[in-house]
Amino acid sequence: MNKPNPFSNIRVVLSHTTHPGNIGAAARAMKTMGLRHLYLINPRRFPDAQADAMAAGADDILREAVVCGSVDEALQGAAFTVAMTARLRDISIEAKSPRAAAPLLLQQAAQQPVALLFGTEMSGLTNEETGKAQVLVNIPSHPDFSSLNLAAAVQIIGYELSVAAQSFVPDPPEVRPAPHEQVEGFFTHLEKTLFEIGFFTTQNPARLMQRLRRLYARARLEPEEINILRGILSVATEYNMRLRSRYQKEN
Amino acid sequence: MNKPNPFSNIRVVLSHTTHPGNIGAAARAMKTMGLRHLYLINPRRFPDAQADAMAAGADDILREAVVCGSVDEALQGAAFTVAMTARLRDISIEAKSPRAAAPLLLQQAAQQPVALLFGTEMSGLTNEETGKAQVLVNIPSHPDFSSLNLAAAVQIIGYELSVAAQSFVPDPPEVRPAPHEQVEGFFTHLEKTLFEIGFFTTQNPARLMQRLRRLYARARLEPEEINILRGILSVATEYNMRLRSRYQKEN
Repeated sequence: MNKPNPFSNIRVVLSHTTHPGNIGAAARAMKTMGLRHLYLINPRRFPDAQADAMAAGADDILREAVVCGSVDEALQGAAFTVAMTARLRDISIEAKSPRAAAPLLLQQAAQQPVALLFGTEMSGLTNEETGKAQVLVNIPSHPDFSSLNLAAAVQIIGYELSVAAQSFVPDPPEVRPAPHEQVEGFFTHLEKTLFEIGFFTTQNPARLMQRLRRLYARARLEPEEINILRGILSVATEYNMRLRSRYQKEN
Repeated sequence: MNKPNPFSNIRVVLSHTTHPGNIGAAARAMKTMGLRHLYLINPRRFPDAQADAMAAGADDILREAVVCGSVDEALQGAAFTVAMTARLRDISIEAKSPRAAAPLLLQQAAQQPVALLFGTEMSGLTNEETGKAQVLVNIPSHPDFSSLNLAAAVQIIGYELSVAAQSFVPDPPEVRPAPHEQVEGFFTHLEKTLFEIGFFTTQNPARLMQRLRRLYARARLEPEEINILRGILSVATEYNMRLRSRYQKEN
């Protein structure tokens, strides 16, 4: 029997990393745990001699790393994204521990590409980046000193995945979630529509879009469902335009 | 109720660390997981600016670090020692995963000082150092690339301890194991005695002592038991000396 290897579907995405040494150390951490695919969003310096030095034998991971210009580019094709965070925000999407997240991640990765999204050394992920994820993971740390090194965070997640993989049995898929870019297309369409129908006049758009992202992150939209929702949006806009033109004629 | 804090009884011991940056990174990893006591056996360079830089805020751990001249000095007072190893040796003492070892370690640390012993970056612990431990722990890693960074290994063990601490309930103590120096005193006495009674003429002393260490590591000797065993050793030598002197007189 061909056992699927979920690790080949997992990518580690490092956003706007400041120190190239951390990229190298993260690559080393990945390789010790059997992770291979590294994506870098606008790294400050890459490739770099310090990255190579800290990789200490994981230079193949660095050589094959994919450098991207935006978070959407780095998540292209991913059907499930986990955002790593040190802080727990007020409007948060579902937050899990690494131990609880690992089996879930492997289940997703057995079917489709998944992404582990890590923010910068100083400030972590932006709200915009976190909003692209379906699950938020927080590594428990000491309340007085929660400043984990970037590579240390990669190491712990990789370790939990590698331990979870030892007892991993794939479930039959329940939903076939759409890839990142289709979901983003829907959100863009939704936001535009809400503007057009005048919904945002009394609401804070950014905050409301975060809430809607959270709702749909839980639902894990399938491509077919996205088509239906976007169909509704188009009709809503047309209806709104008809109403408006009639209103203008009458006045 | 006063819940004991086992973390205050846990020391991290780094043996012959080559790069001061790794000492700093290990201190940072410790502090994020709530570990505070760092012991250094003959570090190549310490204190050092690179250690401070990599500690990134954990410089209090470095300032309070205890620099020792030997493994026995670093284990002084410890009643339980875990040796971290990347390799699994032929004559090994009991080897556990970090996840299996963590609750056991907390149980021990709720009663008496325990030590986590880490070897050098290049070659790990020596056989002599490993022989001083009661339990051996191996971090599972990818078979093609098992070269975990020293601080990464500290991070994973600290993480497992910190997760285990969340559900930790101390057991009533079964044995009161003797501190490291008493156990070492017994082994020195045992080895000397085995030489004197001529046992080692047909045996490989180092290999045999390793086997005996393994046996007594499982038993967890109490101070009282060490007194009894050393009493037996003393009598055995006297008996042997009486026999020898009688034999010499008769011939």
